[in-house]
Amino acid sequence: MAEPRISSIDGKLAEEFAVPSHVDEVKEKMVSFARLHADAGRRVVLITSGGTKVPLESRTVRFLDNFSSGRRGASSAEYFIDSGYAVIFLHRHRSLYPYTRMFLSVNMLDALQFRAGEGAPANSGEVVVDQQVLPNIAKVLRRYNEVKEERLLLPIEFSTLSEYLHLLKVAAQALSSLGSKAMFYLAAAVSDFYIPASDMPEHKIQSSDGPLQLSMKMVPKILSPLVKDWAPQAFVISFKLETDSTILIKKARRALDTYRHQAVVANVLDSRRGYVVVVTPETEAELILTDEDEKNEVEIEERIVSNLTAAHKSFIMQPVG
Amino acid sequence: MAEPRISSIDGKLAEEFAVPSHVDEVKEKMVSFARLHADAGRRVVLITSGGTKVPLESRTVRFLDNFSSGRRGASSAEYFIDSGYAVIFLHRHRSLYPYTRMFLSVNMLDALQFRAGEGAPANSGEVVVDQQVLPNIAKVLRRYNEVKEERLLLPIEFSTLSEYLHLLKVAAQALSSLGSKAMFYLAAAVSDFYIPASDMPEHKIQSSDGPLQLSMKMVPKILSPLVKDWAPQAFVISFKLETDSTILIKKARRALDTYRHQAVVANVLDSRRGYVVVVTPETEAELILTDEDEKNEVEIEERIVSNLTAAHKSFIMQPVG
Repeated sequence: MAEPRISSIDGKLAEEFAVPSHVDEVKEKMVSFARLHADAGRRVVLITSGGTKVPLESRTVRFLDNFSSGRRGASSAEYFIDSGYAVIFLHRHRSLYPYTRMFLSVNMLDALQFRAGEGAPANSGEVVVDQQVLPNIAKVLRRYNEVKEERLLLPIEFSTLSEYLHLLKVAAQALSSLGSKAMFYLAAAVSDFYIPASDMPEHKIQSSDGPLQLSMKMVPKILSPLVKDWAPQAFVISFKLETDSTILIKKARRALDTYRHQAVVANVLDSRRGYVVVVTPETEAELILTDEDEKNEVEIEERIVSNLTAAHKSFIMQPVG
Repeated sequence: MAEPRISSIDGKLAEEFAVPSHVDEVKEKMVSFARLHADAGRRVVLITSGGTKVPLESRTVRFLDNFSSGRRGASSAEYFIDSGYAVIFLHRHRSLYPYTRMFLSVNMLDALQFRAGEGAPANSGEVVVDQQVLPNIAKVLRRYNEVKEERLLLPIEFSTLSEYLHLLKVAAQALSSLGSKAMFYLAAAVSDFYIPASDMPEHKIQSSDGPLQLSMKMVPKILSPLVKDWAPQAFVISFKLETDSTILIKKARRALDTYRHQAVVANVLDSRRGYVVVVTPETEAELILTDEDEKNEVEIEERIVSNLTAAHKSFIMQPVG
């Protein structure tokens, strides 16, 4: 028996958000991935990461975007893998990526050099990494290769809000067979507003027409059908980013009341790398990096993942119903 | 004697677009770069590349953006350097970059491996590039190092529209001493609309307040003071990207009439990699890649740069006034 509100979101998805052409192919990949790791007894987490693009024109020149480097999602992916999870990494095209994120700020050509010595002339053509520029490269490459070898990471890209919404839906369906062993870690910065395809001009908006008036509709709250309909047994974590700390916890609690999922990771823009609160219906856990932690380059995502994997374990063990 | 219209743009720049804190430092770098290459008898081109971000909130979570990978600017920079120019590359943070652009689609960790052989154990820790994955790397690295050695490329980054506008202004001032030997190649996709700092909410716009109404003002046409006031002797090229081919040439001509600069590179979104028209007050040159060209991986930017460097040469030789 479908609830009217849920099916209306499903209907809206189909009508107002273009279905990406590769959605079936992606679903197939996700289903195989889930099956492979379920058979191996692994838990699987779907991580969403990065911001969504909202086009203002159907042949898109302009778009609305959300601030998000994808840092939190990319680093969390590594910690989940280290904790024994397999990871579907649903991320914004060109946002930060697990492992490679560690040297994104370096121009690769500044980190490469022609190999000299051992009789090799400087122009032998063999190109090696200068490990003074990238001191961690051997360690990172080794870990990356292990993860690839064991097929622990399935990367899936999105750019637009429409792609994100449809791919999240098929991910939820693909993971539903895992029941409570699936986690959704919804770290992407999803737009709250969009322009429906029917209201969108085809061509580039002309600046000669004068100032721009935009009227944007609210994006349907996808968390609602995700929790109730698509993956009702899964362990679901949403994120709340605000710039105003005074309303943060209130908003996190309101989200839990509304959607009935398991936890909200709440954070404030300016302090998000050193402070988050994991809010559940019963608890509030403050995770804080100390100066000592920061000196040791501890990342807050390690703490977040540690908190949530423990909670997920209890969730799986608890009697159903 | 300042014209009212020009000084009003200057005034607007100061009032409504936050001045980046490093603007003086950047100007100093540009002045030194211009002097170095003027002394060596080189022409200098300022290339702008990538899209501009327009914040919707002062502590920015959301922003309006323009579609632009920065591909045209990055590849043009290489061809200008090959043609004997020194290049100031004013580009959007993380947009495509000269030389490195060639392997942006590859995850670097997939292109690296531990060096084996010659008695080196696989885990010796030396990391080399797999040249089956990156077949051009040795050639690109060699060229990149030459360019670095000869200091032919000065990269400067922007993200927001405000940064772009202020940095373009100081670039024009820094290059004014070169007179007609300076070229401006304005390939960046600059927003036509913005929200003045005074109209901007401080905090993240709340979606619970309902649908979003945005009212955006038109960005002042920076080309006007650039041509008339900041770099009146320079050779200035603007770009016109449309999705509707029927209005393209008309719009290019209108821009030339309005701003009195030297050329417009006009192109249509869908065909921009294989077809452009270089429009000058007297001429229209269609540049087209043939199937043969595309098979040989010829890039249209090579043709654009060849057309414009020839025109720039004539421009420099013509009697002043």
